[in-house]
Amino acid sequence: MKKIMNDPSQIVTEMVQGLVRSYPDQLKQIPGTEAVMKIADLKHRPQVGIVSGGGSGHEPTHAGFVGDGMLTAAVCGQVFTSPTPDQIYEAIKAADAGRGVFLVIKNYSGDVMNFEMAKDMAAMDDIDVRSIVVDDDIAVENSTYTQGRRGVAGTIFVHKILGAYARQGAGIEAIEELAHQITPNIKTIGVALSGATVPEVGKPGFELAPDEIEYGVGIHGEPGYRREKLQDSKHLATELVGKLKEAHHMTAGEHFAVMVNGLGATPLMEQYVFMNDVLDLLAAENVEVDFTKVGNYMTSLDMAGVSLTIMKLIEPGWVAKLDEPVTTIGW
Amino acid sequence: MKKIMNDPSQIVTEMVQGLVRSYPDQLKQIPGTEAVMKIADLKHRPQVGIVSGGGSGHEPTHAGFVGDGMLTAAVCGQVFTSPTPDQIYEAIKAADAGRGVFLVIKNYSGDVMNFEMAKDMAAMDDIDVRSIVVDDDIAVENSTYTQGRRGVAGTIFVHKILGAYARQGAGIEAIEELAHQITPNIKTIGVALSGATVPEVGKPGFELAPDEIEYGVGIHGEPGYRREKLQDSKHLATELVGKLKEAHHMTAGEHFAVMVNGLGATPLMEQYVFMNDVLDLLAAENVEVDFTKVGNYMTSLDMAGVSLTIMKLIEPGWVAKLDEPVTTIGW
Repeated sequence: MKKIMNDPSQIVTEMVQGLVRSYPDQLKQIPGTEAVMKIADLKHRPQVGIVSGGGSGHEPTHAGFVGDGMLTAAVCGQVFTSPTPDQIYEAIKAADAGRGVFLVIKNYSGDVMNFEMAKDMAAMDDIDVRSIVVDDDIAVENSTYTQGRRGVAGTIFVHKILGAYARQGAGIEAIEELAHQITPNIKTIGVALSGATVPEVGKPGFELAPDEIEYGVGIHGEPGYRREKLQDSKHLATELVGKLKEAHHMTAGEHFAVMVNGLGATPLMEQYVFMNDVLDLLAAENVEVDFTKVGNYMTSLDMAGVSLTIMKLIEPGWVAKLDEPVTTIGW
Repeated sequence: MKKIMNDPSQIVTEMVQGLVRSYPDQLKQIPGTEAVMKIADLKHRPQVGIVSGGGSGHEPTHAGFVGDGMLTAAVCGQVFTSPTPDQIYEAIKAADAGRGVFLVIKNYSGDVMNFEMAKDMAAMDDIDVRSIVVDDDIAVENSTYTQGRRGVAGTIFVHKILGAYARQGAGIEAIEELAHQITPNIKTIGVALSGATVPEVGKPGFELAPDEIEYGVGIHGEPGYRREKLQDSKHLATELVGKLKEAHHMTAGEHFAVMVNGLGATPLMEQYVFMNDVLDLLAAENVEVDFTKVGNYMTSLDMAGVSLTIMKLIEPGWVAKLDEPVTTIGW
């Protein structure tokens, strides 16, 4: 294992310190936690707090999406490990400006359990806390840490759209309703070229042969649905777009947002080549692509590969929310 | 070699297509070239054009820094290969709004020669073209493709500051003078954990043992100044900060901007840990850090490692220019 780090058991603590010290005008650490919060006068312009979080190792997710127009706070667990309920509870309290707090939870058993416990704790303080569980990964049903489908890169579209509505003053009921409208329209699938190495483990979670890839691998290295020989980008795009097309029952004339997400070790050059192929395939379906984004957003440490997220835009207002400027580090 | 691509000889063409198709409201391709230009009404608000470029494989550099407040255009050469003079000449013509064009050139023999030839071609069209050669890498004097010192991640600070002054209406003489003021104050040094694989070559440009690192490697894999066993982040930070401190003749009370730049395959988590150590060392020197930035800005394909850029802020106005919002993909 070759990593730039000190004591592996301190890596999340030092990462959060490095992050908030790098962006002192934008982010602060919530005392006693490894949660990160935006610097803003919540009392001056009270809005519904949007809080997310999960295991670390997916940077810039989630802390990189804290900022004006996206998340109010993000809770950073240990690497690939859910944050504890007390840390989430502290983040909820810090994010509450009297109008309630909405939790965006990726569908992993530990996250769902701990965020629900934190929600119950906050309810005893009379904070109106509601939530959505995002399960956008269509690769497999059930998985190593999941009942149902996993939550992956599409979660960032949820952060973006809910954050935009919260900023414009939407109430907690409206945010909740919107979350349930958008989430089923977001679908993701990925392909891995290599496994990720957790610092405290020291070797990759899975191994692929030098000429082998695996479709549908999870962001913690959970098994995917097929291994095959490495093929060219057009072939990979055909496989992933094909699966998403089927899941969306895609028909000509529909509108979509598309994100190509690097898993950590894949250069942007390859991600742009892949997006070029994806856009060719979508053009051939005669669908409209109204929003596109390429880069490292929901990574898996040093895993090589990409995921492809396609969101069906059934409301014309959603793309404007994706387009709105934000002050985050990661968007 | 495991890369997401099609024909390696077409990788830059397909990358540029993927890029401009992903951001159609921000970027356009200059016809007949692989140069990328911002979408803006140059005639409506004429400003000095800021043009940069170089070999591809360093994404988001340079095309990712095209946008309001930074570059007017960027010319993408083949991988690790200078763009041709005619491509640069087309970019200069496209970026000229009647107030002249300023070229930011990284110090590599091919880039310097080709940008100078393009400058001469444009001069025959009566376009006032001036330039700076950035040589911020303090690791070695002379190198595989360079006389003197190489130009690396610090170049992005030059884009940012010149772009900000150009946007506020500065003339070409003022931009030129400023470029010569800021550039000697920008110094960078890096450490590599692995080599980069050029798509058309198919194997890494250099090999390191599983427990070995190399200080001072260039962004094309040019040799550095020392190999040693992998050490912890604090040790790496001590080495790189030590070299930069010496090069800057750093003294207590001085003001600096600091960028930690990932070389392509190094997760953000490790970059934040490294920045945390860098900031500890700078705090111990009693210097003021007024601006910090962490992420993948000047990469070297799939190389693992980081570079550290420290800029001495001798004018108080510079940090405001670094802080100004821009509309680029990569900043």
